Amino acid sequence: MLRTGLAAGLMGGTASRARAADPSPPAEPEWSQTLGPGIGDRVYGQPSHFEADVIRRNVPWLTANAESSVSFTPLQYQQGIITASGVFFERYHAGRPTVDPAQHRLLIHGMVDRPLLLTMADIHRFPSESRIHFIECPANGGMEWRAAQLNSLQFTHGMIGCAEWTGVKLSTVLGECGIAKGASWVLAEGADGAHMARSIPLDKCLDDVLLVYGQNGEALRPEQGYPLRLLVPGWQGNMNIKWIRRLQIGDAPWFTREETSKYTELMKDGKARGFTWPIYAKSVITSPCPEMPAKGPGVYEIRGLAWSGLGKIKQVDVSLDGGVNWTHARLQEPVLPKALTKFTLQWRWDGRPVLLQSRAIDDTGFVQPTLAELRQVRGTNGIYNNNSIQTWQVKPDGSVFNVQLG
Amino acid sequence: MLRTGLAAGLMGGTASRARAADPSPPAEPEWSQTLGPGIGDRVYGQPSHFEADVIRRNVPWLTANAESSVSFTPLQYQQGIITASGVFFERYHAGRPTVDPAQHRLLIHGMVDRPLLLTMADIHRFPSESRIHFIECPANGGMEWRAAQLNSLQFTHGMIGCAEWTGVKLSTVLGECGIAKGASWVLAEGADGAHMARSIPLDKCLDDVLLVYGQNGEALRPEQGYPLRLLVPGWQGNMNIKWIRRLQIGDAPWFTREETSKYTELMKDGKARGFTWPIYAKSVITSPCPEMPAKGPGVYEIRGLAWSGLGKIKQVDVSLDGGVNWTHARLQEPVLPKALTKFTLQWRWDGRPVLLQSRAIDDTGFVQPTLAELRQVRGTNGIYNNNSIQTWQVKPDGSVFNVQLG
Repeated sequence: MLRTGLAAGLMGGTASRARAADPSPPAEPEWSQTLGPGIGDRVYGQPSHFEADVIRRNVPWLTANAESSVSFTPLQYQQGIITASGVFFERYHAGRPTVDPAQHRLLIHGMVDRPLLLTMADIHRFPSESRIHFIECPANGGMEWRAAQLNSLQFTHGMIGCAEWTGVKLSTVLGECGIAKGASWVLAEGADGAHMARSIPLDKCLDDVLLVYGQNGEALRPEQGYPLRLLVPGWQGNMNIKWIRRLQIGDAPWFTREETSKYTELMKDGKARGFTWPIYAKSVITSPCPEMPAKGPGVYEIRGLAWSGLGKIKQVDVSLDGGVNWTHARLQEPVLPKALTKFTLQWRWDGRPVLLQSRAIDDTGFVQPTLAELRQVRGTNGIYNNNSIQTWQVKPDGSVFNVQLG
Repeated sequence: MLRTGLAAGLMGGTASRARAADPSPPAEPEWSQTLGPGIGDRVYGQPSHFEADVIRRNVPWLTANAESSVSFTPLQYQQGIITASGVFFERYHAGRPTVDPAQHRLLIHGMVDRPLLLTMADIHRFPSESRIHFIECPANGGMEWRAAQLNSLQFTHGMIGCAEWTGVKLSTVLGECGIAKGASWVLAEGADGAHMARSIPLDKCLDDVLLVYGQNGEALRPEQGYPLRLLVPGWQGNMNIKWIRRLQIGDAPWFTREETSKYTELMKDGKARGFTWPIYAKSVITSPCPEMPAKGPGVYEIRGLAWSGLGKIKQVDVSLDGGVNWTHARLQEPVLPKALTKFTLQWRWDGRPVLLQSRAIDDTGFVQPTLAELRQVRGTNGIYNNNSIQTWQVKPDGSVFNVQLG
């Protein structure tokens, strides 16, 4: 039998030995002596009211208005690899449209043999595919390029979520249209007021892209593009076009507003990089973190999440001394490609200051870089694609701070 | 590129060829010309109001009152292997208690070296484990023993759900207590008014049982035992004690009310079988089904779910002729042990009557039986552990009926 050393006395002093060898249970609370509410027909379940703090939050100064804005997933409360649909981060460019699925259409046109106009009923008829994948906004961590901004895991890393998505392979639908010779790009356009649009290489579309109508066992949530979104596994969140209404096949990128004015990387010389698509290997420790401080010396489990847009997470290392020494963390099965992966490491804290870091390595061999390494190449003009190692400073009183090392 | 044969004309006649080679998109709906609501801070997300029909439902005549009752998962809408927490089936024996996590305690006592009284904070400190498992009430399908009762997938199979659960291995916690020599059973007791309690063999508790506080990325839902439940992977749902407050270690089963008056199998000779714990291999077709009729001849995807409490699903076969001929279905990865597994089969329906069946085989070699085979052994006195093959009759008009074959 496993003995963890987590005996009662070590557990923050809150666990107590029951006094006798076989004592009576503690006094019965009121809820054990009464009938609770019964089955309520036609009721959709909600979290406990004791969990009212577990919600998406925004940063009011970050965006000019609420319609083109973002809310952040409370990652400090995420227990596994699935993000609860009720707290999955939001990103709107013109607010959240309310799309009637009976009226919604998807047009596929351009360099195809047979343009198609599909209803949602049509799309549900195609062979279905379910996969667990993360979606991350490339601006996640974007506030951190110049300096540590917010003392919060939710705000440094909360523009990410992971769900079981169900839909149809885009390759299947495009197969019905027939792709004309010479075609190499696909424009995906949303039905929101911003007509959010991105150019995507045809090869990626024929590889693993899905048209998604299901999320975590039910219909896609309105915030995530109900009734239909694109899922571009492992690539920048904004390419996963929500409320998708149009796919145009072409032979060159369109250089849309959202792939030029936004979502390109501004380098230190003031020039912008061309397209950056994949999310590279990244990780963060979710406990302890600023919102989940330590509570005195003792035994802890360091918990975190790692992900890569290139494949599976192969290894996560944890450092207690700001990156000098590293220890392998345990990876929780199942480890799935382009999905959040949970890692854990048992830790006995002696109460001295600690610089906590995690470092992800994916199955392509890509190693998560330090922020100093990224700045050396890219400077601090940009806001996108910050996949650097996060440092949490744990102070002797257990409080945790977002810090940046030399 | 995959060609499915699902061209526009085959898709129920609703898909339409766009008229020109590169036509304009259809007229823009109102929601593409306006700003939608922006980021709302402190708001917990909900499904679209267009999905208001996707809810748990109950069968009013099935139970004497609402406090000791059950609601059923709308499996006809489940898109993958994860069941949405808002529609995960409920089963109460004294209604749903509202348990304050700050007040809640778990007592572990009996044949242990060191009894423990744990707070939720203590339990969160232990090494964590996340796993995707189903929970099924053994009364699922119980109405069907004598005759087909309800023309509904939700009511024949909806007492099941599957989630990513997070908690601590019970073996880890018991390791802190130290198990006395000769101990072989564990009593698990809930904090609900019914003090729902079951005896569980110690070997199972030391194998894969978890104390669970997380569900699909957030805290366990109140209906599922907030703040703490037992997860007994693959075994009868009622053993997965919710709102768990007490674990007593002993050397014999307790024969509690809920393992004698209920959840034992009444055989045809009027005697009851002893404990039946595992959920044996089972499957059901979720589309088409009574709630998801066919819509005229054409190409369809037959979709369903399979599960086994003994391990992984190895194979699912589908029959169109009431079990005479069988075809292997495709299994959707990841196929996880003691979890729902999604299967699909492409089908071209010619409009003639069909008797649709699915048959699961797990990696122990167990083959899902017919109802006739079960009745031969057990008769029709019982209501539990009906894992028989379900038959859906598809009529020429596309309507689907719950039928039983001689």
